Amino acid sequence: MRMAELSRESGVPTPTIKYYLREGLLLPGEKTGPNQARYDARHLRRLRLIRAMLEIGGISVATAKEVLATVDAAEKDTHRMLGAAQYLLTARRHHCDQETREQAEAEAGRLLAERDWRVPVKSPARIMLAEVIGSLRTLGQDDFLDRLGDYARAADDIAAVDLSVVAGRDDLESMMEGVILGNLLGDTLIAVLRRVAQENLSERMFSGGDGI
Amino acid sequence: MRMAELSRESGVPTPTIKYYLREGLLLPGEKTGPNQARYDARHLRRLRLIRAMLEIGGISVATAKEVLATVDAAEKDTHRMLGAAQYLLTARRHHCDQETREQAEAEAGRLLAERDWRVPVKSPARIMLAEVIGSLRTLGQDDFLDRLGDYARAADDIAAVDLSVVAGRDDLESMMEGVILGNLLGDTLIAVLRRVAQENLSERMFSGGDGI
Repeated sequence: MRMAELSRESGVPTPTIKYYLREGLLLPGEKTGPNQARYDARHLRRLRLIRAMLEIGGISVATAKEVLATVDAAEKDTHRMLGAAQYLLTARRHHCDQETREQAEAEAGRLLAERDWRVPVKSPARIMLAEVIGSLRTLGQDDFLDRLGDYARAADDIAAVDLSVVAGRDDLESMMEGVILGNLLGDTLIAVLRRVAQENLSERMFSGGDGI
Repeated sequence: MRMAELSRESGVPTPTIKYYLREGLLLPGEKTGPNQARYDARHLRRLRLIRAMLEIGGISVATAKEVLATVDAAEKDTHRMLGAAQYLLTARRHHCDQETREQAEAEAGRLLAERDWRVPVKSPARIMLAEVIGSLRTLGQDDFLDRLGDYARAADDIAAVDLSVVAGRDDLESMMEGVILGNLLGDTLIAVLRRVAQENLSERMFSGGDGI
């Protein structure tokens, strides 16, 4: 298809598609003339992924570019590749002082040992776990941290579903898509399901059964 | 304590504290002179909450103000109050077309009925659930949606822990703090635990046991 049709099919305006091409987010089409190129279903699919990352995931063009470069460099090592994409998506914005940080790292380490989670010390997810633990500690929310094991068990259940969905896909590209969208949209999905569940439980616990 | 001490104790610069006072995020101290006021432990605690909402939670000053106004208007109805704070924290940024949206709402309704979650149709969390379902459908991630029931079960486990922590607190203000921080930081905590769990499982499933 031509650029105009790609724009119509994807709902992405032509100037935006050109911007993605210039930025290297979208691979060039097959040249059919000095100012023309042909695009195919892979371009449409990639556009869909780009939009999801930028608009729904709220990540920057630079991060999206890194993630897609990882997708495009896909080799046989599925774990390494899925991990690289996941690493790039793991935001970092939690801070606490050095002492709290060291205690939090030890606490994260104990949790991992308890659950027999084998994750390297330099894993971004593990580093961020220590940061969140440190933030909760700094903010005096120790009672939440007392239940870390329960939260970890639920996270394990969620991750098992995530992995079984991704592993059930046929090709590496849709597996990668699953990791990216499953994490970006999936975090929101879990957060929202959690709020719906909280609302249901809160109504039952606190409102004294006077109905909705 | 004086403003300078409040600043030292909280680590928040004086001009920032003055800004929070002007914006009504922080309640005024007790006047001790034309240009002086005395602040106490409640101001320190509130400052900690404001910083957590703005910096860690990444919400706007306007939203933080609304949430705190809800805290300050706290009445006897715990469920309603916790709900109001939670509503304000539920972001909305997912979009899909009208037809997908209606199907997604029906799907959300079925999920709620299955789990016997009693949540009103106009609940922001429920509306956002339909939006996330619609987005995943639009993006062709139907296999994730096939496992919605599994995700909802895990969310129920998480919410039960959340509620038991909050219900175990002594006073309404720390309960509110638990709802706000438990949701803002808690979403990150769950997301991060999920990534650590994924990394552990992915290593076991895909990397062929060659160790870390």
